[in-house]
Amino acid sequence: MRKFFCALACVLACGLVFAAPKKSAKYVFLFIGDGMSIPQRMMVSNYLKALGKPDLAINKMPDFALTTTFSASSLITDSAAAATAIACGEKTKNGMVGVAPDGKKLVSIAEIAKKTGRKVGIITSVTLNHATPAGFYAKNQSRGAYYEIALELLDSGFDYFGGGGVGSHDDKKSKAYKGDIYDLARESGYNVAIGRDDFAKISGGKTIAVENKGGAIPYFIDKPDTLRISDFLKKGIELLDNPRGFFFMVEGGKIDWMCHANDAATTLMEIEDFNRAVEVAIDFAKKRPNETLIVVTGDHETGGLSLGFAGTGYSLYMDRLALQKASRDAFKDKAKRLMKKGEGFGGAQELLAESFGFDFSDDKKNHMRLHSAEREELKKYFESGDADKFANAALRIFNNRAGIAWTSTAHTALPVITSASGVRSGEFKGFIDNTDIPKIIAKILKGNP
Amino acid sequence: MRKFFCALACVLACGLVFAAPKKSAKYVFLFIGDGMSIPQRMMVSNYLKALGKPDLAINKMPDFALTTTFSASSLITDSAAAATAIACGEKTKNGMVGVAPDGKKLVSIAEIAKKTGRKVGIITSVTLNHATPAGFYAKNQSRGAYYEIALELLDSGFDYFGGGGVGSHDDKKSKAYKGDIYDLARESGYNVAIGRDDFAKISGGKTIAVENKGGAIPYFIDKPDTLRISDFLKKGIELLDNPRGFFFMVEGGKIDWMCHANDAATTLMEIEDFNRAVEVAIDFAKKRPNETLIVVTGDHETGGLSLGFAGTGYSLYMDRLALQKASRDAFKDKAKRLMKKGEGFGGAQELLAESFGFDFSDDKKNHMRLHSAEREELKKYFESGDADKFANAALRIFNNRAGIAWTSTAHTALPVITSASGVRSGEFKGFIDNTDIPKIIAKILKGNP
Repeated sequence: MRKFFCALACVLACGLVFAAPKKSAKYVFLFIGDGMSIPQRMMVSNYLKALGKPDLAINKMPDFALTTTFSASSLITDSAAAATAIACGEKTKNGMVGVAPDGKKLVSIAEIAKKTGRKVGIITSVTLNHATPAGFYAKNQSRGAYYEIALELLDSGFDYFGGGGVGSHDDKKSKAYKGDIYDLARESGYNVAIGRDDFAKISGGKTIAVENKGGAIPYFIDKPDTLRISDFLKKGIELLDNPRGFFFMVEGGKIDWMCHANDAATTLMEIEDFNRAVEVAIDFAKKRPNETLIVVTGDHETGGLSLGFAGTGYSLYMDRLALQKASRDAFKDKAKRLMKKGEGFGGAQELLAESFGFDFSDDKKNHMRLHSAEREELKKYFESGDADKFANAALRIFNNRAGIAWTSTAHTALPVITSASGVRSGEFKGFIDNTDIPKIIAKILKGNP
Repeated sequence: MRKFFCALACVLACGLVFAAPKKSAKYVFLFIGDGMSIPQRMMVSNYLKALGKPDLAINKMPDFALTTTFSASSLITDSAAAATAIACGEKTKNGMVGVAPDGKKLVSIAEIAKKTGRKVGIITSVTLNHATPAGFYAKNQSRGAYYEIALELLDSGFDYFGGGGVGSHDDKKSKAYKGDIYDLARESGYNVAIGRDDFAKISGGKTIAVENKGGAIPYFIDKPDTLRISDFLKKGIELLDNPRGFFFMVEGGKIDWMCHANDAATTLMEIEDFNRAVEVAIDFAKKRPNETLIVVTGDHETGGLSLGFAGTGYSLYMDRLALQKASRDAFKDKAKRLMKKGEGFGGAQELLAESFGFDFSDDKKNHMRLHSAEREELKKYFESGDADKFANAALRIFNNRAGIAWTSTAHTALPVITSASGVRSGEFKGFIDNTDIPKIIAKILKGNP
């Protein structure tokens, strides 16, 4: 009889627990690695393993879901349709931000967070009006309408924007032109901080903080000392921390750019840079462990990256990626300057050696030694003045030495990983679609079951 | 006071629940798609979506874990080290089956299942003594020692082997030679069934049932009417079903072979064939829902497959894969015969049209029309009598038309998905290593927490 009573009491108590409103997360961080799918994350993981270093924080989060990324117009999404899916929970056509295929305006998770009384911050390593951040505040059928999207940014009422500059901020050709976006921002009540000196003086209020006026943050491999997204997030937390909570979207946007360029080492260092921003959120969560949710996803795969290559068979030489010292862009610029000077291949050899650790000796034991066919190919492109083909060939040879290869300069249909930690992070599990991400976050924001 | 008592009763009751032994699975199915990683599974998923058909059962299982596959000797595993990890829970060097890097013999999950009183069945679409099945019964430093491994098969005491034949079954050059493996099998008390007629007569007892004497089961795309792994599993369940339970390992071994050959459509149809075997287990589980665990994994990625290709940008044309009518092997054999006949490229054009749907007209709207450079390349290889290069070029052109590309003819380091359904399938979650798979299964076999 007593046993029966115990069991009954337990059933009743459990019933009460299940009927209660679910926990909500006051502080939510959503990180998006643009172009960062499974091969990109595993490339860094294998690189760190090869160097005997611990794995990235993003690869050690307790929960995750595999996430499909197709758009309404293709099995392969672009970043605009992906941002719309991740921000607004609806599929749209490639090229569109914040609107359904029929043009209907959608509501983003950042706007939902704002309505709940939370402060909202948007951070990216590319321009603030690029497709991914735009998905969280803009409603435009064309991701390329940068000036119009920047006007929508000003209308968003969001509390903080940080990262690269505003693209086309003074686009006098736009039909919607009303003045330079930075002037309009000040008129709308935003404090504007451009560059490191301004950044140090930010004190409060609605803020737009950029590393430079009109472009992306430089690649970490080229200029590690510039303001990084981790700096922008630290500052954002200082500004937005308040008893009603906040929502941050933080994008590592240039991971994608270097996957388009098939540049593995620069991609790797952008992912490490992105991971440092995630670590800022993890540190914050340690102080508010029962109130914080961190979600880390990618918007699609870029480049058809594989950790393995026909020429290296069953071996990977990931440690060799550490030899690269410049991004494809910086390398190409240097090569162009040499080409303009009219120097011979001698100068190019020096550049190839310092940028990729290539060896031009006859030491056949040196794995970075260039074979004669490789030298001939590089020489041909250099002497013909084709800096693009020269850079492509150098990167292909370099990547292949590490056991890495690519199949595309566009995106692919591989799913991405959505990792999560903190409040109700276990709800990210199994196979989900990118449109599920904001739906799950909205439930956890509101404490809905 | 009453509330307090309820809470106390609940705590006590919950404590009892946690201390109790956990549920065990009487019937366990472990499916291994050789070379089947995420791109392979998603290729079929996207293909079916393009045709408006439902996704594979293996992609709809409720639980899964991402699974790393590196071996003790390389970040890129081979099938022997992977089989050892999945069967025995320990990392070993590429090339080794069932032994640690120092040669120490390991114990497989199939052997553990046998010890618990369960019956054991091993099924594969390749030969029964190939690396993956061997991992479950053999202890050999060389996966290539086929005859010795076949002797270990006979010593295993396992109840049922089904699938392709026994490789090198009458290898008189082996130092261990004692006679034809099939004769030795009968002497050891196994019933031997070779081919469909024998298969129909199988009535009971320990059984070795093979589609042919010494090779793999033909590719589904070439010979769908041969005995398939789903047939061998159905028969196996009939034979092994008993009150003490069973353990089946079922391998789709030729998925890998066609990824090595960079043949997407044949790979796709092998995965569908593999999925049909999983459906046999799912049907069984419907009858014993509280006693069955089904686990579906891959041992590694093969080929660096990507669902996207530089030449097709942001589009996939997966439906075009349905145009292929022969495996690379069958196509190459036909091409060889034409080459021997000394026929001109006219005959080859017919073969290319019937095998891949290629069009030789001037109809520029036909997406399968071959451009002049493609025709020239194929003609060159055909006329030079190089059937391998001819087949490779035809497949590359065909795959690219669908938006598919490959980077390697070996394996890569991409993780695989381990899916699960049934008893305690939720224990397959998050990031795991392939060595965790048999450890988790062993817990669920034994009812350990």
